[in-house]
Amino acid sequence: MQTVRRKEMETLELLHMNKGVGETSYAMNSSVQNTIISCGEASTKKAIVKILCTCWPERMGIADMGCSSGPNALRVISEIVDGVYATTRLLDRPPPELVVFMNDLFTNDFNNIFASLPSFYRKQRQEKGSGFGSCFVSAVPGTFYGRLFPTKTLHFVHSSSSLHWLSQVPGGLEDGSGRALNKGKIYISKSSPKCVQDAYSQQFKNDFSLFLASRSQEMVTGGHMVLSFMGRTSMDPTSDHCCFQWELLARSLMTMVSEGILEEEKVDSFDAPYYAPCMEEVKKEIEKEGSFMVEEHEAYEIEWDGGMEIESDSPNAPSLSRGERVARTIRAVVESMLESHFGSHTMDELFRRYSQIVEDHLSNTSTKYINLVISLVKHA
Amino acid sequence: MQTVRRKEMETLELLHMNKGVGETSYAMNSSVQNTIISCGEASTKKAIVKILCTCWPERMGIADMGCSSGPNALRVISEIVDGVYATTRLLDRPPPELVVFMNDLFTNDFNNIFASLPSFYRKQRQEKGSGFGSCFVSAVPGTFYGRLFPTKTLHFVHSSSSLHWLSQVPGGLEDGSGRALNKGKIYISKSSPKCVQDAYSQQFKNDFSLFLASRSQEMVTGGHMVLSFMGRTSMDPTSDHCCFQWELLARSLMTMVSEGILEEEKVDSFDAPYYAPCMEEVKKEIEKEGSFMVEEHEAYEIEWDGGMEIESDSPNAPSLSRGERVARTIRAVVESMLESHFGSHTMDELFRRYSQIVEDHLSNTSTKYINLVISLVKHA
Repeated sequence: MQTVRRKEMETLELLHMNKGVGETSYAMNSSVQNTIISCGEASTKKAIVKILCTCWPERMGIADMGCSSGPNALRVISEIVDGVYATTRLLDRPPPELVVFMNDLFTNDFNNIFASLPSFYRKQRQEKGSGFGSCFVSAVPGTFYGRLFPTKTLHFVHSSSSLHWLSQVPGGLEDGSGRALNKGKIYISKSSPKCVQDAYSQQFKNDFSLFLASRSQEMVTGGHMVLSFMGRTSMDPTSDHCCFQWELLARSLMTMVSEGILEEEKVDSFDAPYYAPCMEEVKKEIEKEGSFMVEEHEAYEIEWDGGMEIESDSPNAPSLSRGERVARTIRAVVESMLESHFGSHTMDELFRRYSQIVEDHLSNTSTKYINLVISLVKHA
Repeated sequence: MQTVRRKEMETLELLHMNKGVGETSYAMNSSVQNTIISCGEASTKKAIVKILCTCWPERMGIADMGCSSGPNALRVISEIVDGVYATTRLLDRPPPELVVFMNDLFTNDFNNIFASLPSFYRKQRQEKGSGFGSCFVSAVPGTFYGRLFPTKTLHFVHSSSSLHWLSQVPGGLEDGSGRALNKGKIYISKSSPKCVQDAYSQQFKNDFSLFLASRSQEMVTGGHMVLSFMGRTSMDPTSDHCCFQWELLARSLMTMVSEGILEEEKVDSFDAPYYAPCMEEVKKEIEKEGSFMVEEHEAYEIEWDGGMEIESDSPNAPSLSRGERVARTIRAVVESMLESHFGSHTMDELFRRYSQIVEDHLSNTSTKYINLVISLVKHA
């Protein structure tokens, strides 16, 4: 049992979005994350104006934490650069040198981002014309639960769809003899013992405060941070809109157990390194850490498929059911994690079942994700 | 013809070392570049001591330009970090924050470097113990013939086995009607018209001075730069030790032409974006650009196979002939470029012939590469 747990820990080093541009890739299935980026847009624009109005830095350090790859990665950067240039035009001042850092885990597909960089630079030069100054995009790999940048070099930090991922599976999900406590589940569930909820909540607190303390050292006074991640509006960590996607995935796994395709012990010993906090938990950690002030915060409801329209007049795109689209979106994100635990040969079957179960669920209920957006400023 | 030329230009955006870890990969065939890195080691160590003795920066910006991927990429960084720590121990001062930038073209395999970073950091912490401070490694993709970094942020610039690559195939290698002038050759050859030599030399001057001007803006006063690249000791750009590897590759291509496997026009219209300068040319450009002073320079003879020992007692490694080893070394570097012009289906056959021709050549003569190492300091 301990071996299984240790093995899971190691798999966190392997967590990455599905690579490439195939039908199960993150690049082709990231519309939910795209919608989530839109939620943070207004806060991002406001933060940039405030940074530039407070201190007009010669060199502006910008970091996107958990940038992933695919079309979303450079979309965020484009918006930030647009925001800076809109402000410089408004205030009629020369643009600062922009130093943009893309961060994600060591296993992220940075080559994919770099392949799009020449056209990104071309587009910026075209759009901004002769007034386009310096913009240097680089990649900084590593976990954001720890230091990544030199002291006091960042003016703006952005993170979208990332901080709900924990640094590790919480400790304390086994009893004294190493038996799994969260039986038949892979995340907090209504049937989970209270200690499972506590273990998850504690891990989130540890991770989030480490994130804040690390950024605090890296950011300049007056620097801004816009964070956007899965959460909940209810105080109850077992409420549907914060864990039902995991609940249905556990159900899919358990149908495979009942048919003898998977061992029950395999499901019992898997727990997702994920936590959807409520705003109160988040604010409490910010207050405790002490370096940042909350400027504003908001909760957004997000459709499980990102609210995507089906383009029925696009003959090449296969017409997918809502269940299939949701299953693909989730698969693109969690497959690397599940694969190393359950084996890659089970993935197609698992997500086939999952898409059916999701389809059935959505035909009766309209469960939505809750996305929290929080805007922070670093005080002296 | 113009179309062919334009197409070649575009392929420069695609230039990259062979990816992965297979038998034709750069990672498995970079012993020559490894030997070349060793040539620059002493200069690198000296430069680091000088930087730290002149100004002890709180934050030290370090860039490796043309870092490639595979084992060499992090070897350079390890040596630089070791040099910094040796100096801090010697002078009994706390280490600066190290900000390390790995640079290469957009198509370089940065994922490969990042996969080795966790063990790099682990090793550094183990070796340096509790005295190990901050070290942040990031990737900055793009051509070094232009700006890559913010103003005055670099203290040390290193570049090995890269500056002999031109930014593009030189202009002026065709006559007025678009006919190739360098017939049957792919680089400067004894039979090349004088205008071909001039075109290559001019392209090198343009590129190298742009490199210097860009670094001049990015580096702090007193910053050091150690550059190491293929060159020659003779004033004659057609001397064997600076172009014979290309001469034999052209011969291999022409045997395929004579057997009807390749069209002659294909060989005529290909020219390598490469130039091996003599020290006088290099020094003249440095003087003309005006920002740097030459501290020291040296020319080293390098065996075509990097002076590698054949490990006869390693039963798993296939025993390769010298010709085969040289052919693999060259293939790992130039295949991406040749492939897009001659077609990927011709590569195996081309390098089979090349290894035979190289083998024959080396059995009679001991042609060596000349590697130039030059150490520069940026003056006020």
